[in-house]
Amino acid sequence: MADAAAASPNVSDLNLDARLEAQLRFLVTVDALKHVERRTLTADGRRLENSAEHSWHIALYVRVLAEHSPEPIDVDRVILMALLHDIVEIDAGDTFLYDVAGRAAQVERERAAADRLFALLPLDQSTLLRTIWDEFCAAESPEARLANVIDRLQPILHNFLTGGERWLAHGISVEQVRTINLPVTDGVPPLGDVVRRIIAHAAAAGWLVDDDAPER
Amino acid sequence: MADAAAASPNVSDLNLDARLEAQLRFLVTVDALKHVERRTLTADGRRLENSAEHSWHIALYVRVLAEHSPEPIDVDRVILMALLHDIVEIDAGDTFLYDVAGRAAQVERERAAADRLFALLPLDQSTLLRTIWDEFCAAESPEARLANVIDRLQPILHNFLTGGERWLAHGISVEQVRTINLPVTDGVPPLGDVVRRIIAHAAAAGWLVDDDAPER
Repeated sequence: MADAAAASPNVSDLNLDARLEAQLRFLVTVDALKHVERRTLTADGRRLENSAEHSWHIALYVRVLAEHSPEPIDVDRVILMALLHDIVEIDAGDTFLYDVAGRAAQVERERAAADRLFALLPLDQSTLLRTIWDEFCAAESPEARLANVIDRLQPILHNFLTGGERWLAHGISVEQVRTINLPVTDGVPPLGDVVRRIIAHAAAAGWLVDDDAPER
Repeated sequence: MADAAAASPNVSDLNLDARLEAQLRFLVTVDALKHVERRTLTADGRRLENSAEHSWHIALYVRVLAEHSPEPIDVDRVILMALLHDIVEIDAGDTFLYDVAGRAAQVERERAAADRLFALLPLDQSTLLRTIWDEFCAAESPEARLANVIDRLQPILHNFLTGGERWLAHGISVEQVRTINLPVTDGVPPLGDVVRRIIAHAAAAGWLVDDDAPER
């Protein structure tokens, strides 16, 4: 085992200065986000998306949709949130949005993951990027609000485009989608309106369990 | 066929205003980048990476390594280049870096793809994002130079970390890697130095064909 590990090429074999080596070690470590599978399909329903490509997609959503924020925002900061928001899943895994109990336990795992991952960077960069990740999680600044709305909008739009395939597979109800998402997505009214239209369409199409149906 | 197409959920079913509908149509269309496979392995060698997750990774590289640029730069503009640089592959496909003839033919295909894809957006956004993509391709501004260096560095680092697996599979030589990459990567000297160290390591390890070997 020791020999195998020694034989495996590593950034430290390049004898770089400590700062550059730390930067590359962080970048190589976060590559693992490409292997974290989400519960959402790609827009064409071909397969589940992973958290790295999702993060790319969310960053582009931010750039294109930022004008809908009701408050003036630093768009570039929101793009950084999009790029960083899921990297803790490398250690903590992806938790299904509708698994409320699982999500509560997830908070501590994600914090521990952030402690480990950001610490790989030189201290100044570690502090800066951790601050941006913490801001995303707190969801209180206008920037973090937009990032969180878009992080909800994209999977809901994919569920819509795939005929509610994942909602049907998990037996998700209208009430679950409303309760869990609207308090977030209404923070950016034009995007919250898209979510409301999708929920209405999905309820009418029978893609979500109807909580008020008498035969329930 | 007409019925099947009509039954498939589409952004236009949501009756949004034209601008928001155009924005979402662009974002849904570029989702296809998740299905474009590159010639580079993930850092752990588990599978080939796709161009969407590669773009996310490159954007993070930019954020972390921007300080090595020899000129002052607008880092956020370079991050946008990273997010956008490969979307033309949705129509034009990924071309292997060492396929010189294929890359010449690729230029026209990529331009046609950019014409189609950026035109999905409202005109102001289309113009702005196309300008950023054109700047990346021209590789003349300090921002575009850094983006292009990083777009070369990441796959070279993955080839290093996987023991040259892709170079060996394609019979790539030391001279090919040098000729195709160094004129680009030397634009940011500390990162060009990483590439030179990797080439020296790979040549010594036999992961690249030795052009000067007598038995060649």
